[in-house]
Amino acid sequence: MSIHSTAIVSEKAKIGENVTIGAYTIVHDNVVIHSNTIIESYCELGVSNQLSQGAKLIIGAESHIRSRSTFYEASTFGRGLVTGHNVTVREKTIVGVNFQLGTLSDVQGHCKIGDFVRTHSNVHIGQHSNIGNFVWIFPYVVLTNDPHPPSSVMQGVTIEDYAVIATMSVVLPGSKIAEGVFIGAHSCIGGSTEKDMLYSGSPAKKIGLASKIKLKDGTKKPAYPWRKHFHRGYPQEVIEQWNNEQLNNV
Amino acid sequence: MSIHSTAIVSEKAKIGENVTIGAYTIVHDNVVIHSNTIIESYCELGVSNQLSQGAKLIIGAESHIRSRSTFYEASTFGRGLVTGHNVTVREKTIVGVNFQLGTLSDVQGHCKIGDFVRTHSNVHIGQHSNIGNFVWIFPYVVLTNDPHPPSSVMQGVTIEDYAVIATMSVVLPGSKIAEGVFIGAHSCIGGSTEKDMLYSGSPAKKIGLASKIKLKDGTKKPAYPWRKHFHRGYPQEVIEQWNNEQLNNV
Amino acid sequence: MSIHSTAIVSEKAKIGENVTIGAYTIVHDNVVIHSNTIIESYCELGVSNQLSQGAKLIIGAESHIRSRSTFYEASTFGRGLVTGHNVTVREKTIVGVNFQLGTLSDVQGHCKIGDFVRTHSNVHIGQHSNIGNFVWIFPYVVLTNDPHPPSSVMQGVTIEDYAVIATMSVVLPGSKIAEGVFIGAHSCIGGSTEKDMLYSGSPAKKIGLASKIKLKDGTKKPAYPWRKHFHRGYPQEVIEQWNNEQLNNV
Repeated sequence: MSIHSTAIVSEKAKIGENVTIGAYTIVHDNVVIHSNTIIESYCELGVSNQLSQGAKLIIGAESHIRSRSTFYEASTFGRGLVTGHNVTVREKTIVGVNFQLGTLSDVQGHCKIGDFVRTHSNVHIGQHSNIGNFVWIFPYVVLTNDPHPPSSVMQGVTIEDYAVIATMSVVLPGSKIAEGVFIGAHSCIGGSTEKDMLYSGSPAKKIGLASKIKLKDGTKKPAYPWRKHFHRGYPQEVIEQWNNEQLNNV
Repeated sequence: MSIHSTAIVSEKAKIGENVTIGAYTIVHDNVVIHSNTIIESYCELGVSNQLSQGAKLIIGAESHIRSRSTFYEASTFGRGLVTGHNVTVREKTIVGVNFQLGTLSDVQGHCKIGDFVRTHSNVHIGQHSNIGNFVWIFPYVVLTNDPHPPSSVMQGVTIEDYAVIATMSVVLPGSKIAEGVFIGAHSCIGGSTEKDMLYSGSPAKKIGLASKIKLKDGTKKPAYPWRKHFHRGYPQEVIEQWNNEQLNNV
Repeated sequence: MSIHSTAIVSEKAKIGENVTIGAYTIVHDNVVIHSNTIIESYCELGVSNQLSQGAKLIIGAESHIRSRSTFYEASTFGRGLVTGHNVTVREKTIVGVNFQLGTLSDVQGHCKIGDFVRTHSNVHIGQHSNIGNFVWIFPYVVLTNDPHPPSSVMQGVTIEDYAVIATMSVVLPGSKIAEGVFIGAHSCIGGSTEKDMLYSGSPAKKIGLASKIKLKDGTKKPAYPWRKHFHRGYPQEVIEQWNNEQLNNV
């Protein structure tokens, strides 16, 4: 355990083996940090508010939280969380393993997020978003929830496994982004979508199968489903499963 | 008064009764913080620049400034300011009571903002914006001011009472958003608008009366004007006034 | 040299004459800060990662880095860098003189940026972007690089001298924004562009010569090329060169 002399760490926080805590970082009472995790400088973990009812912030093992990040109480992250700088995560968010959350991203709380989800920088995940596994969300995407703001109606979005939402798109309240869907950059998507399709535009329209997009790596193979060609950062057992899928489909 | 031992607070700053100042926060000379206010950790208040001519930053009573926020000298906030994390507010902005400014929002200075204005996360308020009362601005909205950037011409936008600007919309320089107007998500709006109308698209077009949007709460009543159904967080006397309006209109 | 007592500055860092370092700022080993530079509070300079191979972060003389900014090792900035608050700059970015980087902007690294480039707030510069001289980029613009995300193909954008990209536009992977081009607000631009033209819309289309846009300052002269009328903040020798261009063109 390596805690910088300027860090302010509550004695009530539970800090696992081999955890590193950087300069000027604050860890409040209701925090559990599992082993082999790095918390960089200027982070504040376990911020309390009236909504968390004393539930703990739990950070899984082997995580890396970059500097200036703020996490509230009452959220749970599986093993291998990786954040950029300056992220904010509010209360009551339940996240699976190996979540990657880009610099300046803002998770508003009350969300469910599956395994191996990746967001790039500056993504806004509204309350009551429900995100599956292996989802990708690119910079400046906003997941909304109020169909006629301001109101008391909350319709969080649902994003299914392997879906991809490209840069600066808005996902309208209550939308269902189906498995393997690709939403093009600068789109505004609402309503339901069909599996493995490409949607683009503002308002977004169905363009066709996402697999029509070809790789610009010289192979001209389909770019989607992306798991057929992009494996960086996933564990070996996941990659093997994807490879087996392809063998079985041939 | 509760000032964390790591906070750096100028002796020249005027701090009211029952003010709380968090860890690693810096308060410079030209700052007045009125009573019962909470300043969280890592904030910097009263940053000086050549434009503020020594005028003070004034934070009204009963305010709550969340962590990592930066405020310059020479702005004034009425009672009940509430910010998210990581906001930046430059000099010469005059704000009424109960302003709520979302996480990562950026007020560029030289603005006028009325009473009970609420912005959600990551809103950019350009210089010389003029915002009325009870306005709502949602995530990733940008209020611009230069009609042909870069130039020395400044045409701040005007947003009148009760107007609503939904997620990821651009308000073009010199636009006038009339009372009760609703701008749909992912729009680009310019020029003048008519009271209580809905505009949407990029470029935005007039769609019809905003009141045609119906509530998705089962009642199917009009969603706009929103003050007919949404009262959360407003003081009792304001709500009573809104209720009386409705009685008189029947 | 003025280093705040709470700043944590490595003895291995090279700090020039008359450098000011603010409260709670961290300067790591592999950092060179040239003379007459101001580093404000809560900055972290010289963050290390596996990609920088020990190369230094070099900040040119007469620079001003505002609070809460994060710079990695292995980037180089010419004289006169000016940042807003809360910027993030990753490794392996080579920048010319007098770069101005707005509040909350995020430079992802592996970029080339010329002289006198200005970005406004909250600009996202993707990896492998190649930006010329005298370029302007306005708030919430995203420069992308992956033509079919996620993938291993990287096609950074190229932006030539004097080009202007207005608010909340996406520049698609591999785009070439030619010299003097103006991209309108809320656009999505891809492919190649022609010199001095105006493009606008999503997807963006060629509208005509940018010089058709007239100044709203009463003169009705062309607003582009902007260097014919906008000189604020440029050194005298640059302005003289621009004036001579105009004399020669008449």
